Amino acid sequence: MDDQQGFAIAVDEAKIGYAEGGVPIGAALVSRDGKLLGRGHNMRVQNGSAIHHGETAALENSGRLPASAYKGATMFTTLSPCDMCTGACILYGISRVVIGENKSFLGGEAYLKQRGVEVVVLDNKECQGLMESFIKEKPEVWNEDIGEEARVYSKEAK
Amino acid sequence: MDDQQGFAIAVDEAKIGYAEGGVPIGAALVSRDGKLLGRGHNMRVQNGSAIHHGETAALENSGRLPASAYKGATMFTTLSPCDMCTGACILYGISRVVIGENKSFLGGEAYLKQRGVEVVVLDNKECQGLMESFIKEKPEVWNEDIGEEARVYSKEAK
Ligand SMILES: [Ca+2]
Ligand SMILES: [Ca+2]
Ligand SMILES: [Zn+2]
Ligand SMILES: [Zn+2]
Repeated sequence: MDDQQGFAIAVDEAKIGYAEGGVPIGAALVSRDGKLLGRGHNMRVQNGSAIHHGETAALENSGRLPASAYKGATMFTTLSPCDMCTGACILYGISRVVIGENKSFLGGEAYLKQRGVEVVVLDNKECQGLMESFIKEKPEVWNEDIGEEARVYSKEAK
Repeated sequence: MDDQQGFAIAVDEAKIGYAEGGVPIGAALVSRDGKLLGRGHNMRVQNGSAIHHGETAALENSGRLPASAYKGATMFTTLSPCDMCTGACILYGISRVVIGENKSFLGGEAYLKQRGVEVVVLDNKECQGLMESFIKEKPEVWNEDIGEEARVYSKEAK
């Protein structure tokens, strides 16, 4: 599949999450040769999970893979990745992270670049709309998801 | 509970993981006031998991918590945390990470410090012994767990 198809899966996952009443962030992990390795969405509300974010859920749903499988892979995600998901992408040596938007929240983009990961930000309005709707509806759940007590727009390293 | 008790739980979790045939890394998350929030161990082998490492398993088993619950908390872990677990501790604003050993693997200690997290390394020989035994027995599982194709002793940011 191409980038457009990979990103569409991430958006689809975010919408599934929103429909379930959850944090609407989705992700898809696609191998170097365009094969979908895994897809997933944030499961905080659905499973009471502190670690199944969009990106980590996509990694989890990709199952056990040798390091070689992640080489040249792209993580498509609807939102700028938090520090945990940033670290997960670095751990597995994922080559590229394609991000729907970083206006509702800016995560570890600078650190990804510093560690050699290519970062692409799409400025996608549908992704931003999903986040803004959710944050308006359930602000306390969103704050909890990023470890904050009130809304922040960035957790970028100082 | 005190530090010795918190760390003992992490070691206990690592041993449970080893007995299950899994990667022998355990962790325990203890609140500022000494209450155990959660404990866990690496579940790669047991659950085919790519994201349930010791520290993330302890976070997951702590369940949903508001940001305030992590303030002043200590993550006890038997091994120097990988980039994902480093990022998870940063995400939640965990104040301190107490590490069993970093000889068999050195993870994100420098980055934790850079992000304001206190890091304590115990140089615990029992933890190191568990890791060296496991790596000798199942080197390919360990490499997979840290996203490598051959043994490395450090994934510290360059
Ligand atoms: Ca904070
Ligand atoms: Ca590597
Ligand atoms: Zn995340
Ligand atoms: Zn880890």
